[in-house]
Amino acid sequence: MSKSLTLYDIPSTLLNNAWSPNGNKVRYVINYKGLPYRTEWVEFPHIEALYKKLGVQASATKADGITPHYTLPLLYDPSTGAFVSDSAAIVRYLDKIYPETPTVIPAGTDAFHYAFHEALVRSQSGALRKLVGIPATFLLNPVSEEYYRRTREANAFGGRKLEDVSPKGEDRKREWARVKEDLGKVNAWYGKGDRYVMGDTVSYADFTVSASILWIRTVCGADSEEWKDILTWHEGRWGTLVKDFEKYETVL
Amino acid sequence: MSKSLTLYDIPSTLLNNAWSPNGNKVRYVINYKGLPYRTEWVEFPHIEALYKKLGVQASATKADGITPHYTLPLLYDPSTGAFVSDSAAIVRYLDKIYPETPTVIPAGTDAFHYAFHEALVRSQSGALRKLVGIPATFLLNPVSEEYYRRTREANAFGGRKLEDVSPKGEDRKREWARVKEDLGKVNAWYGKGDRYVMGDTVSYADFTVSASILWIRTVCGADSEEWKDILTWHEGRWGTLVKDFEKYETVL
Repeated sequence: MSKSLTLYDIPSTLLNNAWSPNGNKVRYVINYKGLPYRTEWVEFPHIEALYKKLGVQASATKADGITPHYTLPLLYDPSTGAFVSDSAAIVRYLDKIYPETPTVIPAGTDAFHYAFHEALVRSQSGALRKLVGIPATFLLNPVSEEYYRRTREANAFGGRKLEDVSPKGEDRKREWARVKEDLGKVNAWYGKGDRYVMGDTVSYADFTVSASILWIRTVCGADSEEWKDILTWHEGRWGTLVKDFEKYETVL
Repeated sequence: MSKSLTLYDIPSTLLNNAWSPNGNKVRYVINYKGLPYRTEWVEFPHIEALYKKLGVQASATKADGITPHYTLPLLYDPSTGAFVSDSAAIVRYLDKIYPETPTVIPAGTDAFHYAFHEALVRSQSGALRKLVGIPATFLLNPVSEEYYRRTREANAFGGRKLEDVSPKGEDRKREWARVKEDLGKVNAWYGKGDRYVMGDTVSYADFTVSASILWIRTVCGADSEEWKDILTWHEGRWGTLVKDFEKYETVL
């Protein structure tokens, strides 16, 4: 294939714009597969209009189970004319349509990948969301930050400002310890000395883990105390993983 | 190998004694591997004494993280002299020591199996525990039932009798609907038309799912409304699975 894929993703004030962990999961995979692509940046409040302009159905619904939930990343593949949203669905699509590229969900591991995602999400206490997810908001462009605040502060935080929900001082230390504990549960799944979930074989599960860790580096910064701390956790597993995949972070 | 493994398991008033889902997981695997074994039945209040008599360390601790938690199943392998407790550890042991038998945790899926277990446990709301776990108690022999009641009624149920915690009438219907919903989440992980977690390949993940479903048949009975209902759920996935593995239920 020669036509570039389009990856619709949420921009930020960061140098390379890349901000969203879900966007980064897909970007990792596209780069790993060596597929040509370009990113189209779409601010939070413009996502719904984009879907409507493109005539694409939302693949998810909001909590009520009815209202369409328009999310990024969204992939457009000009070779097939397909639009695919939801990072896990995008990755499965790419494995299927481009079998000549390295597979990220090896045969027989599809259900395991769904369960892995479930386990990964459910093993997290929410500490990472508080410690990293909230300050991440402040890296959005103003139009997205305003939108994010307006929708999240009202719904998820009962009217409290994000700044007030963000843990500080001793609270922050306690939450940080919980992040380590949460990652310790994930660490315990790995085989002794294994670099990846499947041992020596890279799979999508690794990219999902790495995108969560990359999120910490993105928000706290590579020079932060937090990042330096993580590099020492669990025999350096997390730093090694992100380092291994650094070459697939390229934003085009 | 010619020497029989010993599987220490909890007995019940049922015809073949087999009662424990964790015991059944290991039994499935031993039979699937075609390894000779015999079961040694040990009542709940005698488990700790058994460990001490055998000079075996507990592999788990109670909630305080210190007090040893003596659990069954426990496996004794006379060929190596090893005692192994915890069903997941036993199965991994058997895969390693008897590589000439069918592997249940295929290469590269070890971490996936840990995550699968985590996802399976965490995707359950507790409805199955209430609806099936509580009446299961009444199938224990008196000495175990008394012990189970004494320890569980005091700790987990705040002094309430198991009979009073067991949902009835409309409550029961609601909880049963939740069991279906919980299993629906697990069903969604499977590939379309796939019989097993890994597609055509049987793995330990299938035995763990099947042991949960078998638990329902064991407690409610194969002629119960509940069991007939389950056979219709999710395109018959659960009934098919238990039926497929029926030949590995053999209690020796």
